[in-house]
Amino acid sequence: MIVVMKKNASTGDVEHMVQRIEGLGLKAHVIVGTERTVIAAVGDDRRAHKGSLESGPGVAEVVPILAPYKVASLEVKHEPTTVRAGSLTVGAGTIGVIAGPCAVESEAQILASSRAVKAAGATALRGGAFKPRTSPYSFQGLKEDGLKMLATARDATELAVVTEVVASEDVPLVARYADVLQVGARNMQNYRLLEAVGNTDRAVLLKRGPSATIDELLLAAEYILDAGNPNVMLCERGIRTFETHTRFTLPLATVVYLHAKTHLPVVVDPSHGTGHTYLVPRMAAAAVAAGADGLIMEVHPDPENAMSDGYQSLTFEQFAETMATCRKVGQALGSKF
Amino acid sequence: MIVVMKKNASTGDVEHMVQRIEGLGLKAHVIVGTERTVIAAVGDDRRAHKGSLESGPGVAEVVPILAPYKVASLEVKHEPTTVRAGSLTVGAGTIGVIAGPCAVESEAQILASSRAVKAAGATALRGGAFKPRTSPYSFQGLKEDGLKMLATARDATELAVVTEVVASEDVPLVARYADVLQVGARNMQNYRLLEAVGNTDRAVLLKRGPSATIDELLLAAEYILDAGNPNVMLCERGIRTFETHTRFTLPLATVVYLHAKTHLPVVVDPSHGTGHTYLVPRMAAAAVAAGADGLIMEVHPDPENAMSDGYQSLTFEQFAETMATCRKVGQALGSKF
Amino acid sequence: MIVVMKKNASTGDVEHMVQRIEGLGLKAHVIVGTERTVIAAVGDDRRAHKGSLESGPGVAEVVPILAPYKVASLEVKHEPTTVRAGSLTVGAGTIGVIAGPCAVESEAQILASSRAVKAAGATALRGGAFKPRTSPYSFQGLKEDGLKMLATARDATELAVVTEVVASEDVPLVARYADVLQVGARNMQNYRLLEAVGNTDRAVLLKRGPSATIDELLLAAEYILDAGNPNVMLCERGIRTFETHTRFTLPLATVVYLHAKTHLPVVVDPSHGTGHTYLVPRMAAAAVAAGADGLIMEVHPDPENAMSDGYQSLTFEQFAETMATCRKVGQALGSKF
Amino acid sequence: MIVVMKKNASTGDVEHMVQRIEGLGLKAHVIVGTERTVIAAVGDDRRAHKGSLESGPGVAEVVPILAPYKVASLEVKHEPTTVRAGSLTVGAGTIGVIAGPCAVESEAQILASSRAVKAAGATALRGGAFKPRTSPYSFQGLKEDGLKMLATARDATELAVVTEVVASEDVPLVARYADVLQVGARNMQNYRLLEAVGNTDRAVLLKRGPSATIDELLLAAEYILDAGNPNVMLCERGIRTFETHTRFTLPLATVVYLHAKTHLPVVVDPSHGTGHTYLVPRMAAAAVAAGADGLIMEVHPDPENAMSDGYQSLTFEQFAETMATCRKVGQALGSKF
Repeated sequence: MIVVMKKNASTGDVEHMVQRIEGLGLKAHVIVGTERTVIAAVGDDRRAHKGSLESGPGVAEVVPILAPYKVASLEVKHEPTTVRAGSLTVGAGTIGVIAGPCAVESEAQILASSRAVKAAGATALRGGAFKPRTSPYSFQGLKEDGLKMLATARDATELAVVTEVVASEDVPLVARYADVLQVGARNMQNYRLLEAVGNTDRAVLLKRGPSATIDELLLAAEYILDAGNPNVMLCERGIRTFETHTRFTLPLATVVYLHAKTHLPVVVDPSHGTGHTYLVPRMAAAAVAAGADGLIMEVHPDPENAMSDGYQSLTFEQFAETMATCRKVGQALGSKF
Repeated sequence: MIVVMKKNASTGDVEHMVQRIEGLGLKAHVIVGTERTVIAAVGDDRRAHKGSLESGPGVAEVVPILAPYKVASLEVKHEPTTVRAGSLTVGAGTIGVIAGPCAVESEAQILASSRAVKAAGATALRGGAFKPRTSPYSFQGLKEDGLKMLATARDATELAVVTEVVASEDVPLVARYADVLQVGARNMQNYRLLEAVGNTDRAVLLKRGPSATIDELLLAAEYILDAGNPNVMLCERGIRTFETHTRFTLPLATVVYLHAKTHLPVVVDPSHGTGHTYLVPRMAAAAVAAGADGLIMEVHPDPENAMSDGYQSLTFEQFAETMATCRKVGQALGSKF
Repeated sequence: MIVVMKKNASTGDVEHMVQRIEGLGLKAHVIVGTERTVIAAVGDDRRAHKGSLESGPGVAEVVPILAPYKVASLEVKHEPTTVRAGSLTVGAGTIGVIAGPCAVESEAQILASSRAVKAAGATALRGGAFKPRTSPYSFQGLKEDGLKMLATARDATELAVVTEVVASEDVPLVARYADVLQVGARNMQNYRLLEAVGNTDRAVLLKRGPSATIDELLLAAEYILDAGNPNVMLCERGIRTFETHTRFTLPLATVVYLHAKTHLPVVVDPSHGTGHTYLVPRMAAAAVAAGADGLIMEVHPDPENAMSDGYQSLTFEQFAETMATCRKVGQALGSKF
Repeated sequence: MIVVMKKNASTGDVEHMVQRIEGLGLKAHVIVGTERTVIAAVGDDRRAHKGSLESGPGVAEVVPILAPYKVASLEVKHEPTTVRAGSLTVGAGTIGVIAGPCAVESEAQILASSRAVKAAGATALRGGAFKPRTSPYSFQGLKEDGLKMLATARDATELAVVTEVVASEDVPLVARYADVLQVGARNMQNYRLLEAVGNTDRAVLLKRGPSATIDELLLAAEYILDAGNPNVMLCERGIRTFETHTRFTLPLATVVYLHAKTHLPVVVDPSHGTGHTYLVPRMAAAAVAAGADGLIMEVHPDPENAMSDGYQSLTFEQFAETMATCRKVGQALGSKF
C-alpha cells in the first residue's frame, strides 16, 4: 500500500502513520517529495485496513498495490484452469457452449431444446428451474419439477445440465440434479450462497453483477475457491451503463483482461449482454474472437411464446447459424470448438 | 402498452400482434401513422409479457405505460406512509435519524455509540452483526453475539435497533433482537430474503442496489408488501457511476422523484453515498433539504481504529455538529426533526 | 409521439393536449385506458416540441415513436454507404484499416510508421497534427508542420491521410492536406465544426463522444449530411462507464445496432476503446467479428518514447500480428479485408 | 508518481525504469516489497509522461500522486475566489442566483423574464442567443439579435447578463454584450474556446461535461486560468449515468469535494441536472444545503410554449417559491443570500 499524505501533513502525522502501518505488520518506507510525503507499506497488505488508514490524520489517500484476491490470481497459479462437468469442457483452448431456454417450461419444451442445441453443437444444456424475477408478478419457475425435466433431458442427450441456484438452502436440492450450479448476476455478492456452492463438488458458473468491478467478481470467486471448490467459471453478461439501445452493455475486453489476471476460464453471455435476439449472433462471434472460453446462449423452440426472455432468445435455426459462424471464427484463431 | 411496429411491417404482422394482445386479455387499438403503425394495448398490462410481444414479427419496440409496481404506488394509496418502530418514526413530515457504527465490535463500543448518538438527537441505533463483505478475508461481524450487544444498547438508551439480515434463514434470529430489519444493497434483489422479511412483523429498511433503477427498487419493495408487511422504508445509498472521487454517486433527486411515485418514506445514507467522512455532514443537510424522511449515518467512537468503514464514519463530535446543521435545515423547511 | 396522461388528468387536460398536438400539425388519437388516457400524435414529429408537450397540464410523459434522425436512417436509404478516400475504402463488405501514431512527432517517425503500417496491410495512415489534450501542459501537436509531414508520408506510400481537425476555422487548412477529416470524441457535439466539415468535399470520420447516446451520434452525423457531405464514417471508440480496468468500455454491440439503423459505415477504435496495448489485438479481432467496416489503431515505432498515448500503441511487430489475426477472422466471415 | 512493477519484472526492468524516471528530471526511490517492487518518482510530475512510463518493460501500472491541475488548486491559493460581474457576486459565502429562459425568444419574453427573476431575488439573468442543439432540426437561437435583447433587459433591470458562447470566433461578439461568458457542457473540452474566453476580461461560467471527471473539469478551468483569466465559476449540471427517471444525475457531493480541492466557486444547475420542473425546487434547496456558491435556473413566462427546455423551466411563481425556500436554507446555514 502507498499512503499519500496531504501537502500540509505534519511530521507528527507522518510519524503516527508509520506506527499505524507497522502495527499492521507491514514495513514503512517514508519518501519525502517536493510537494508531498508518501509512505510505502511493504508486505502482504490484503488483510490490512486500507479503509482505516484512510481515516488517519493528514492522509490524502491510500493506494493498494496488491490485487485483493489471491487464490484466483494468475500470479499464484500460472496455468489456465480447465473446468469439466459431464459433457462440458471449458478453458485452456477448448470452447464450451451452453445453450437452452431461459426457463424450463415443460418436458416437451426442454427435450426439444436439448436435442436441437446438441445437434447444432452445444456441449451443455441451460434451463432455469428457480427464476429470480424483478417483479413478484412474473413467472418464478417450475422449481423441483423443472429440475426433474432437466435430468430427463440429460438422460436423452447426455448434455451436462447448467441451472441456477438462488439460495443457500436450495443448494443440496439443485446439486442433486445439476452438473453446473449457476450463481446469477443478482446473487454475485450473496456470500452465503457463494460459500454454499463452494462446499459442493459441482462446477460453478459465476455471473458478474451488472455493476460489479472485476475485482469484486474475482473476490466473489475467491469465496467459492476459499471454501474448497476449484471449478469456477467466470461469466461476463453485461454491465449497466447509460446505454439504453441494449439491455446491458457487453464489455468484451473483460475476457482479455481476465486472461491476464486469473487462471479461471471466462464464459460470455451474449443473450443477457445485449437483450435483443438480432444482436446475439454477431456478439457471440465477437466473444469468440476476443478469446472467450465458453458461450452461454438462450435458445427457445418458440421465442414469441416463451414465458421469459423471448426477446433475446434464438430459434433453433438461428442458433445453428450462430454456431456455424462462431465455429469459423474459433477455428480461424486455433481454438478447439 | 404501446406496440410500435417497424416501418416495413406487413398488414399480417399487425393483425398477428392484435391477436397476441387480445389473447393477453387486453384491448388493441391500431393507429396507422404516416411512417409507422402503433398498437395501443389497453388494460392492466402489469402481468402481460412485454418481452414476448417484443419478439413478435414486425415489432420495433414495446413501450409500457403503467408502472410495473402496484401496492407501492402513490396512485393506489394517496397518503404518505409513516413507519414506526420503537423510538423511530419516519415519514409524513417527521424525520428519523438512524446512527451508529458500521459493525458492532464490542459491548463497550456499541454502548458508547448508542449513548452518544442519542444525546445528539438520533432516534434509532444502527450496527451490523452480520456483515456482507466484498472480500472473504475481511471481518464478517460478531453474529448473534453482536445482536445481543445491540439489545443491551437498546435497554440502556431505549433507541430502536436497526440491523442487517443477509439470508432468509437468519430472519427469525435477527427479528428476535431487531426493531428494523435492514436489507442491504447487495441483497436488494435477493427475493427469498425479501419474502422472508415480508413475512415478519418487523419494519424493513430496504437499500437501493448500486445499479438498481427506481422501478427495480419499487418492485423489490413490492415483494415485501405483497407478502403482507406494509412497514417498508426505502433507502437511497448511492449508485455506481463513472465517478471515482466519491465511493458512490448520491443522487438526491431520488427523494423527490420517489415522493411523486410512492407513499413509502425515503431514507438517505450519506455515509455509503459518499464514502468519505468529510463529505457526510453537508450531504446529510442536502438530503434533508431534498425532503428526505430519514437519515442513516455511520458514527464510531474511534473511526481510525474501526474494523470496517472507518473512512466514512463520523466521530461523536462530528455527528453532533452534523445533527445541528441538519436540524436547522429541517426546521427552516417545516419538518419535525 | 405518444402523450401519456397522468391517472388524475382531467377531461379538460386531455382536450387541451389534443389542441396542442393539432396545433403542431399532427393528428391526435385519444385512447382511454382502464387506468390512464394516452394520446397518439400521428405525423412527422421530428420537428415537434416533445419537450414543451411534456410541460402540458396532466401530462405524465411523452414517448417519441420516430427516430429523431432522418438522412442517416436506413429507412430512408436502404443500401449501405461505401466511403472512399484515396487508398481507403470502408463499408458494404470492405474493411478499411487506418493505422499510425497518435501524434505526428517528426518526419522520420511518420515516414517509418506509414511504411510499416502499409507493409502490414493498412489502407490509410492516421496521425494527429492538432491534438486536443486534457491538460494545457501536454504536447499539443505540430500543427501545420505536422500536416506537411503527413503529406510527405502520403507521397511516399500512397496511403490516404486521416487527421483530426479541432476547430471550424482550421477546416480549410486541414482539408488542404487530409483525405479524411477526423472529428474527435470531445468535438462530437461541436456543431459549428460539424457544419464546417459538412461543407467540404472530404470524407469525415466522426467519433462517438464517450457519453453520447447512439441517437446523439446519428444526429451529429445528420449535421454533416444535412450540410451536403454524404461521406461520413461513424466511429465507436468506447464509452465512459464505472469500469476502471480499461480506459473506456468498448461496446461492440454498437456495430450491430448501427447496421440495423443506418446506412453509414462503422469503424471501431480498439486503441482508445481499451487504453492498453495488450488489449488491442483481441478487441480488434472482436470488432471484425462483430461486423465492423473498419478499424483505426495507434501504431508507433517506439511506444515507450511516444509523446502521447504510448500505453495504448502497438509496435510495428504487434500491428503486423494483429492484422494477421483480424484478416483471418474477416476472411472466415466473408469480408473483403 | 508511483511506478508499480509486475511481480515477474526483472532487475533490468527496474533499472531501466529508474533511468527513464531520472531522464524526466525526477528522483527515483526503489522499494522492494515482498511480492512486487515499486519505484517512487519524486518531483513535480505534472509534465511527465505517465502514459509512456506505463509502456515501460515490466511495468504493471503508474499511479500519479499530484493532482494534474495547479493554478486551480486550493494548495496553491488558499482563499476561496469571489467572482464578481456587474450585479452578480459568487463565492466566499455569497450565493449568486442566475435565472432566466433557456433561449432568448423575443424582447418581450426576455424583458418579462428579467423583471420577474429580479423581483424574486435573482442576481443575474441567463438567456441563450447561440443555442447548441442535439438535432440540426431544432431552434438554434436568435444569435446577435438575441444578444441585443439581453442587453436591453440588462438596461431595464441592471441584472448582469450570462449567456453561452459556442465557438472561439464568436467570443469577441458575445463578450461585447455579456457580463459572463458561459461555456456549455458540450464544449467543456473545446480547448480553442477555453483559450479564447481565457483571453477576455469577462467572467466565465464553465459547465461540467456530462461524463467529465472532476480532474478533467479542473484541467478545463486550468486552460482558462492559464490564459490569464482568473474569474472562473465551475458549474455542476449533472452527469450521465444509467438512471433514466431524471435527464441527468445531479451529484451534489461535487460541491463539497470541489471546495476541498479548488478555490474556485461552484454553481449548481438543478434545471439541467434533473430535467423536470417538479424536481427543481427541492434540488435547488439541496444544492444550497450542500454549500453551493450559486444557482443557475431556467425560468420562462410560459414553459408550455417555450422554444426549448420548457419541461425543466419554472414559471415566475414557481421560481419565487423556490427562491423563498432556498433563502431559508441559505440563511439557516449562515450564507449571504
